[in-house]
Amino acid sequence: METPIALLGGTGKLGPGLALRFARAGVPVVIGSRDAAKGAAAAAEVTAKLSATGEDAAPVGGTDNLDAARRGRVAVITIPYEGQAALLPGLAEALHGKVVVSTAVPVTLEEGVGFTHLDVPEGSAAQQAAALLPGAHVAAAFHSVSSAELKRLAQPIDGHVVVTGDDAGAKSVAMEMVRLLPGARAVDGGPLRCARYSEYLTILLLTVNRIYKTHAGVMLTNLPPEPEEA
Amino acid sequence: METPIALLGGTGKLGPGLALRFARAGVPVVIGSRDAAKGAAAAAEVTAKLSATGEDAAPVGGTDNLDAARRGRVAVITIPYEGQAALLPGLAEALHGKVVVSTAVPVTLEEGVGFTHLDVPEGSAAQQAAALLPGAHVAAAFHSVSSAELKRLAQPIDGHVVVTGDDAGAKSVAMEMVRLLPGARAVDGGPLRCARYSEYLTILLLTVNRIYKTHAGVMLTNLPPEPEEA
Repeated sequence: METPIALLGGTGKLGPGLALRFARAGVPVVIGSRDAAKGAAAAAEVTAKLSATGEDAAPVGGTDNLDAARRGRVAVITIPYEGQAALLPGLAEALHGKVVVSTAVPVTLEEGVGFTHLDVPEGSAAQQAAALLPGAHVAAAFHSVSSAELKRLAQPIDGHVVVTGDDAGAKSVAMEMVRLLPGARAVDGGPLRCARYSEYLTILLLTVNRIYKTHAGVMLTNLPPEPEEA
Repeated sequence: METPIALLGGTGKLGPGLALRFARAGVPVVIGSRDAAKGAAAAAEVTAKLSATGEDAAPVGGTDNLDAARRGRVAVITIPYEGQAALLPGLAEALHGKVVVSTAVPVTLEEGVGFTHLDVPEGSAAQQAAALLPGAHVAAAFHSVSSAELKRLAQPIDGHVVVTGDDAGAKSVAMEMVRLLPGARAVDGGPLRCARYSEYLTILLLTVNRIYKTHAGVMLTNLPPEPEEA
């Protein structure tokens, strides 16, 4: 069996949606959770949804975060930003030398104020993840992808996903992962310090969603065609 | 004659492009500059381009910034961010009670690093403009619109323009100004404190432009149709 993509803290909002899409594209997934039983339950739920489509899909397993980090060929951090400072240091050894994709957005919803960024000493959630995981190759992606859209399996994603990273290999792996989502295009957004702009774009989308009661995504205009399309 | 839109510091990159589009849509424009002669020269150039199209357009005049601020029904700040702290205090009285639209992005291009945001004590260029113009009704817009695209008069803009502001009337005026650009849709991006997300989105676009050698714009997906389209 192909080595799976590990979704760390994958029982939340983004994790099950990505698990559905990755497995449906033929890539095995292991969902990590603080509690191995919760990881297994989330995996069983995703597997049931995939079976219901009647189409082939790769296996989705569930376990605790450390075991998922060890088993994953690459890992995607899908816990909320506030949780990563507690989670990641314990996974640093297991993730050493691996590609790790940050999806976290440092955002809070203040009553009567709306969505606001949280100040991150490292500059962005992705840069903080890189600081907490020395030896891992960190890229950032998937911020703007709506969990609700991921779960509508019959529909394509139809949006652009900005990928940032300092390591060309890690960025390329993250861009390949984006291409597992039907209709999604990966856009190179520069080095990891630019992850902040991609994270903040999601705060803009959250604000727009609240005003227009929708799940907005983003597309960039005037991009040249992708090499495959040219 | 209808009272014009004033473009403060309008001889730079964004000013002439907006002047072309506003005047072509039938709205008079006055271009302000530090030097009245430069403002007049920029206006003459825009007028010549409009005449060359053979179509009707509203008049475009040029003058110094203070005179433009006094004559404008509304004003758009089109000088680079670094210039506004020196310019705006002297215009505060002339702009009192008027709608002022901030377009500035606090960005710098560092050699060997790329585009990076400048820290703004007030949070965003728009919030700084509001602090420097007590009594004006400040909204923010047009950050993501490419000057190059504005100048290609034969082509529509075809993008979404995020508008932020605390004053509903000012936001509404800014959204109407966006609708003067053919193909552009104004998207409500929340209160003025969210201008930062819109400003940073432009830094993301600048980075993408550098990587892909293009003039990228932005469109949001899954927005409900505009009331006029419904």
